[in-house]
Amino acid sequence: MKALKIPEATIIRLSVYSRFLAQVKRRGVITISSGEIANGVGVSSAQVRKDLAYFGEFGTRGVGYNVGELYGHLMKILGLTSQWQVIIVGAGKLGSALTMYAGFAERGFKVVAVLDSDPRKIGQKLDSIEILPVSRLAEVAAANQSAIGIIAVPAEESQEVANTMVQAGIKAILNFSPRVLMVPEDIVIRNVDLSVNLEILSFYLGAQKR
Amino acid sequence: MKALKIPEATIIRLSVYSRFLAQVKRRGVITISSGEIANGVGVSSAQVRKDLAYFGEFGTRGVGYNVGELYGHLMKILGLTSQWQVIIVGAGKLGSALTMYAGFAERGFKVVAVLDSDPRKIGQKLDSIEILPVSRLAEVAAANQSAIGIIAVPAEESQEVANTMVQAGIKAILNFSPRVLMVPEDIVIRNVDLSVNLEILSFYLGAQKR
Repeated sequence: MKALKIPEATIIRLSVYSRFLAQVKRRGVITISSGEIANGVGVSSAQVRKDLAYFGEFGTRGVGYNVGELYGHLMKILGLTSQWQVIIVGAGKLGSALTMYAGFAERGFKVVAVLDSDPRKIGQKLDSIEILPVSRLAEVAAANQSAIGIIAVPAEESQEVANTMVQAGIKAILNFSPRVLMVPEDIVIRNVDLSVNLEILSFYLGAQKR
Repeated sequence: MKALKIPEATIIRLSVYSRFLAQVKRRGVITISSGEIANGVGVSSAQVRKDLAYFGEFGTRGVGYNVGELYGHLMKILGLTSQWQVIIVGAGKLGSALTMYAGFAERGFKVVAVLDSDPRKIGQKLDSIEILPVSRLAEVAAANQSAIGIIAVPAEESQEVANTMVQAGIKAILNFSPRVLMVPEDIVIRNVDLSVNLEILSFYLGAQKR
């Protein structure tokens, strides 16, 4: 379980590196230096080397990294060599956007079900996925226990949705509702608040004035 | 410019702490310990103290922090004591979701304009905001130079949108398109890929199996 000690910021950068390498690979490039990766994604080359060093030796000194090999390694580290199923609860604006977000499929995440509590939405389709009643969540989650659950419901409904997911055997949850959710320790959960991204900008803009 | 050296992970946690303190404040709590903050948001109390220490001394040893005061400090640090205007380019599913995302307004971000290139969308409304043609971006950005620009267009259009924003005087950009954008050094930019959040989960799920 050594991998669990890797800083989250490193995991995020590995994801960014892998995307950049995918681009480079499509252009037919064979080898690449840490400096070129660094320039491509906007970090220092020392950072690139440090991030990769967590997972052993990849490159050859003076030559650099084999693009295809490094890309393969990163995808394996990120758990992206197999497809992940995703269940989304909440078919509001955000849930719908997530369901139809092309970036998920590109990285191997396949939305297998979308559920909502609004009777007017049940039976409608998002791309080819029919919206199911949230009352069927326990059944859908039990049938897809290896799926990642995404919660995109209002704050007051999110804990109950999380409870149902956990009881049905879901092991990983991505929470977009603006509330910290309580889950058992063996569940991997990540709380996403979209305004955090704006706050990082406002922090830096404010710092420039300070 | 000391603030610029603060790790991004710390800024993200400050944002999380401030949200938690807002909740606690609404319940009428006067003082809180680092341990209680830590429990509330799921980090260690040492982490809370370390994050806050970047910005000076806040609490009283043995007593803890005054909730209202600490909340006020954090909001000031995050640049959230004044309102920020936001211009969104791209009124697809994601852009629409972002435009109507209640979490932005709660934290002082006000969407002042939404623009799109699709003639069928021009003139339609998202909440009370009319979608404008993207051809008016230079004009809208020039009239709101202190605004934060959000890019929610396909990858092949995003660099041009960023260029137009920068030329019109926009200083901060949040990029949701899956492409690394080139901007001058004095522009603050943050690239958001929603699938990164899923990849952090798949990393941990994969690590459990390793």
